[in-house]
Amino acid sequence: TQQLLSDARPEVPRARPYRVSNANRSVRKGIMAHSLEDLLHKVRHALMLADKPFSLVLEEDGTIVETEEYFQALGEDTVFMVLWKGEKWLSPSEQGTGYQP
Amino acid sequence: TQQLLSDARPEVPRARPYRVSNANRSVRKGIMAHSLEDLLHKVRHALMLADKPFSLVLEEDGTIVETEEYFQALGEDTVFMVLWKGEKWLSPSEQGTGYQP
Repeated sequence: TQQLLSDARPEVPRARPYRVSNANRSVRKGIMAHSLEDLLHKVRHALMLADKPFSLVLEEDGTIVETEEYFQALGEDTVFMVLWKGEKWLSPSEQGTGYQP
Repeated sequence: TQQLLSDARPEVPRARPYRVSNANRSVRKGIMAHSLEDLLHKVRHALMLADKPFSLVLEEDGTIVETEEYFQALGEDTVFMVLWKGEKWLSPSEQGTGYQP
């Protein structure tokens, strides 16, 4: 994790790459974000969620990510999943590969 | 795991990421905590337990975690489970995947 001192702005964490999937894993997009707030904002746009309420979970086990603090502890390239209200996290095996409802 | 020296406060262990599940594994949340006391406090809030008594166990085998010393020996991303009074730890196979009461 290289850091350029000349670019250091302690108040704004540097943007990092994340991956965000929809609930059935049919779409996955790469998104750069500085913060959880920034990611939530970009996800809404990238996955065309309009103003639907959704939550962001870890794709690997459905852990809900709702604090900035926890988000900042996650590594680059963490894979998230977007769940709309009413959608549930399923493991890839429960879901079946390439499953589409 | 990068650490900024200017932020170092030797008297407070650095916050680490943990995952906390409810007893039926339907909800899992990511929580940052400095200590067992801090985690218990945040779990109560994050899982909306109000003032219900609960214990914290390891999700993998139901080991009760009740000392700060043992908690500090656990790694980042340890998965805990919250058990309310009367709830019992069950293995995922006993419980059935995606079980909801």
